[in-house]
Amino acid sequence: MRIKTYFPIFDWGRRYNRQTFTSDLIAAVIVTIMLIPQSLAYALLAGLPPEVGLYASVLPLIAYAVFGTSTALAVGPVAVVSLMTAATVGRIAAEGTADYSSAAILLAMLSGLILAIMGLFRLGFIANFLSHPVISGFITASGIIIATSQLGGLLGIPTNGHAMPELVMSTFEHLGQINFDTVAVGAVALALLLWIRLDLKNWLKRFGLPKGVANIIVRAGPVFVVFLTIAWSDLFDLGAKGVALVGQVPQGLPMLSLPSFSLDTIQALALPALIISIVGFVESISVAQTLAAKRRERIDPNQELIGLGASNIAAAIGGGYPVTGGFARSVVNFDAGAATPAAGAFTAIGIAAATLLLTPFLAILPKATLAATIVVAVLTLVDFGILKRAWTYSRTDFAAVATTLVGTLLLGVEVGISLGVGASILVFLYRSSQPHAAIVGRVPGTEHYRNVKRHKVDTLPDALSIRVDESLYFANARFLEDLIYELVAANPAVKSVVLLCSAVNAIDMSALESLEAINARLKDLGVRLHLSEVKGPVMDKLEGTDFLAHLTGQVFLSHHAAMLFLAKVGNEPRDDENRSSDATDLPVAAILNGKS
Amino acid sequence: MRIKTYFPIFDWGRRYNRQTFTSDLIAAVIVTIMLIPQSLAYALLAGLPPEVGLYASVLPLIAYAVFGTSTALAVGPVAVVSLMTAATVGRIAAEGTADYSSAAILLAMLSGLILAIMGLFRLGFIANFLSHPVISGFITASGIIIATSQLGGLLGIPTNGHAMPELVMSTFEHLGQINFDTVAVGAVALALLLWIRLDLKNWLKRFGLPKGVANIIVRAGPVFVVFLTIAWSDLFDLGAKGVALVGQVPQGLPMLSLPSFSLDTIQALALPALIISIVGFVESISVAQTLAAKRRERIDPNQELIGLGASNIAAAIGGGYPVTGGFARSVVNFDAGAATPAAGAFTAIGIAAATLLLTPFLAILPKATLAATIVVAVLTLVDFGILKRAWTYSRTDFAAVATTLVGTLLLGVEVGISLGVGASILVFLYRSSQPHAAIVGRVPGTEHYRNVKRHKVDTLPDALSIRVDESLYFANARFLEDLIYELVAANPAVKSVVLLCSAVNAIDMSALESLEAINARLKDLGVRLHLSEVKGPVMDKLEGTDFLAHLTGQVFLSHHAAMLFLAKVGNEPRDDENRSSDATDLPVAAILNGKS
Repeated sequence: MRIKTYFPIFDWGRRYNRQTFTSDLIAAVIVTIMLIPQSLAYALLAGLPPEVGLYASVLPLIAYAVFGTSTALAVGPVAVVSLMTAATVGRIAAEGTADYSSAAILLAMLSGLILAIMGLFRLGFIANFLSHPVISGFITASGIIIATSQLGGLLGIPTNGHAMPELVMSTFEHLGQINFDTVAVGAVALALLLWIRLDLKNWLKRFGLPKGVANIIVRAGPVFVVFLTIAWSDLFDLGAKGVALVGQVPQGLPMLSLPSFSLDTIQALALPALIISIVGFVESISVAQTLAAKRRERIDPNQELIGLGASNIAAAIGGGYPVTGGFARSVVNFDAGAATPAAGAFTAIGIAAATLLLTPFLAILPKATLAATIVVAVLTLVDFGILKRAWTYSRTDFAAVATTLVGTLLLGVEVGISLGVGASILVFLYRSSQPHAAIVGRVPGTEHYRNVKRHKVDTLPDALSIRVDESLYFANARFLEDLIYELVAANPAVKSVVLLCSAVNAIDMSALESLEAINARLKDLGVRLHLSEVKGPVMDKLEGTDFLAHLTGQVFLSHHAAMLFLAKVGNEPRDDENRSSDATDLPVAAILNGKS
Repeated sequence: MRIKTYFPIFDWGRRYNRQTFTSDLIAAVIVTIMLIPQSLAYALLAGLPPEVGLYASVLPLIAYAVFGTSTALAVGPVAVVSLMTAATVGRIAAEGTADYSSAAILLAMLSGLILAIMGLFRLGFIANFLSHPVISGFITASGIIIATSQLGGLLGIPTNGHAMPELVMSTFEHLGQINFDTVAVGAVALALLLWIRLDLKNWLKRFGLPKGVANIIVRAGPVFVVFLTIAWSDLFDLGAKGVALVGQVPQGLPMLSLPSFSLDTIQALALPALIISIVGFVESISVAQTLAAKRRERIDPNQELIGLGASNIAAAIGGGYPVTGGFARSVVNFDAGAATPAAGAFTAIGIAAATLLLTPFLAILPKATLAATIVVAVLTLVDFGILKRAWTYSRTDFAAVATTLVGTLLLGVEVGISLGVGASILVFLYRSSQPHAAIVGRVPGTEHYRNVKRHKVDTLPDALSIRVDESLYFANARFLEDLIYELVAANPAVKSVVLLCSAVNAIDMSALESLEAINARLKDLGVRLHLSEVKGPVMDKLEGTDFLAHLTGQVFLSHHAAMLFLAKVGNEPRDDENRSSDATDLPVAAILNGKS
């Protein structure tokens, strides 16, 4: 049982047959073709040699096939994580140096260890603190930064920076150095890729091609663009004309190795590795769960952490850089019919073969082709609609989106997402520290009590029913005190205050002290404090304290019971024997003495 | 009106008369006598020359008299803030240098500005995030650190550090250098001060002295100890025997001046100034509110911020260091009958006069006397009982106390209190991300619904009533999805799920997306999703979205209405006309179509 939990491969592996094999193989071919140009391009985005993207698309896929729970997820280098890698590693080493590559490998190793540990300790819930608005704002901002960062590649000028101000500045600075051969290659690649994405499928359908074949041709389109521009580069000797080419790359696959490291580097990379891990995990689990829901399958988030952790450790051992489950490729994998994680393993074999075959040709591939590939891929990330949707729904959600979006654009990915998470937590804390409260009355003909301002309800003249819409804890304990003192001061006829606790999910020690203070203060004013509808877990806590002994009033199971009691018995002195005999003829007598 | 809000002096000033004047004057005399040795000692604790403590007890009291709202609060140097000042300033300058003094002055100025700005922008609620457990743990740890730090002064050996490890180590290191004359002075001062505090009053009463006179003698006790040890020092020439003396201090009062500063220093002091401000404010407001409650007065927290801000700015201008309202002196002020903030102004005049008279004698005062004063003063701060009380009440509150206590002892005041606040917020977030939920049923004979596990209740066979005890937001949105899928999978007979939302105080955008997903998933399973008892503010939000249009079920005003409807109509297709005609004969028909 435990083995099946930690190694899902033993679960689906036993049910593996010829049919699933065929499905997986077809999906693997399509995904392999799609992944080749993307892997090269994303490595470039991460500031690494393009072949590293291929390396990162081999072992991680096999590791995920062993440990992952999603049947459709395709892991590998993705745009946002590549940008984050560049921003992190660029801080501690110069692009193109051996230190840079080994830092990227170490980052993958750290990220893998963090993910695996989070999975083993079942800490997947941490990812919940990245809210949808924050993620949306972050992805949109990342898309804009990535597209802007590729302008240099398309124009043949050097640019740098991982946030908008520096990127835009450095692009403007070098505008005079535009290389028009590069612009030509970039423009053609961009136009072709856009056409392939937007229109090729319909065009092929008009020619009467079967849907399956058309699909494969569309997926192979970007590879065709790569070969086209390699041929162009060869024929017109673009390298001599100043067009940036990929350059000589090592033949074959890298040796497996453990990353070298120093404590200083680990210290510098630890926090970014954590952020990259969580962002990657959230991106991956969202895709996995969306696709799993379509097939009525279940994803185990904690096992997914272990799967992604293993993938990243594998990426480090195989000379790659941080990877995660990608949205576009997983959807393609799913649509192509991938039936088990084995499809990923077959894709890995495909990429490994492609790496061996392709590397001789890569030297003369113009970098502009890869820049165009990236721009087309990230256009789908940009979604300004989230700003409008968030604004319409609530100002606080809008604040979280806007903070993340603007923070990421101006200050970079790590600061941006941290600001977003911080803002959404602060907003939540602020709201819960200033809770909504309502005076409630009885909805006529029912035992239901609602806000006097919103509903036509009945109230008792000398009893004040207050519903506080929040758990009582340190941040709002003082608020509660002020609220009750104010309400009691404003209603001098009041002899009883009943706190309707249906929305109070917890009472911490600070709030308990405030309740004691309120009880004492009201006692001095001759006003009794009652509680109603206190939940089980909260009541358990209160019963361990002196508060109930000091309480001038009672705890009622339902607010209606409290109101019936107050209407009949009124503000009589508390007297337990008297109370129960008085209460027996009430319809709710049975519950008055029950555990509330 | 505005002027009275910002300058409470115009409010109480108009009602000032001979009677309040007499009360204030008597209180001022007693507080002055009490403050003299404490001010000297706390300045020493802050690493400053003792006379700075006197300077910090003049202008701030006058500023508070103008801006403060508490009739009894006595501001000035206090133990915890002095320790925090030493810890902060000690990091950027060496004790005894001019840089050290000017940094302390700058710290007071920054702290004053922060407090005043918080007051003007009504940000007093920020202080609520320092929970009672955190404050208690912090004050106890500070008391221990302060008492330990004075061991050196009592033994005549040099010690350093503002956290336990360094303090204990440095005390042990120098144990060989104990000066026995210092030990003698320290032991006598300590014994006398303890006797004065614990027993002198009873002793005087036995001699038949009136209570008022006895009180004044007790308060004057520490001043007597100061003069006694000055005499001892003079007679036996303690300075020549290696006893540390206060040494020559400037005569008279300092010139008023604005602190000099550099941007670097401001940057280094800004965050500590914020922490000191909040700790000082929380200490002060707690005292002020406790005393105000006894007299049925009201404290305006935001105006208190302005009052304390003005006091600290005044402290900076008068050459002092950060001040706040002290517990012991305020209680003394209150007991002595202070009727208005003018008592503070009179105290200031008293201290100014004492400064002029005392400074000639201070040179030969043994520092051990001041160390003994501090030890006796801080003993009341130490309260280990909080650990036990927190443990009994809840493990999470205990975690907050223990984190703060241990963190402060081991890592110092700033780190300790930050850890404590962080821990209490994390605990709150964690709890709200894993909310309590219950399946509920009807308490027989009522319209009240409670947890099936805790109460004997009735349920419908094909309807699942789930009460989630938490607002729905990003951190628990996924939890809710998992919960409902699990419960529905475990109850295959279920045709309707009713979410009882009485404890849902907010639904943010992430949670709304989860609700949409739950609704869609349940629809696929042929299960309807209903909501009941959705609160007004939450319903307002939902009405601005498509969610209600997509919802397969309905929104009911009360859970009982939902149950009656389901019991009668069952899982019929949603049809608004059909629904209302079917529902009219139900007793709750009127509310079924109402705004819920």
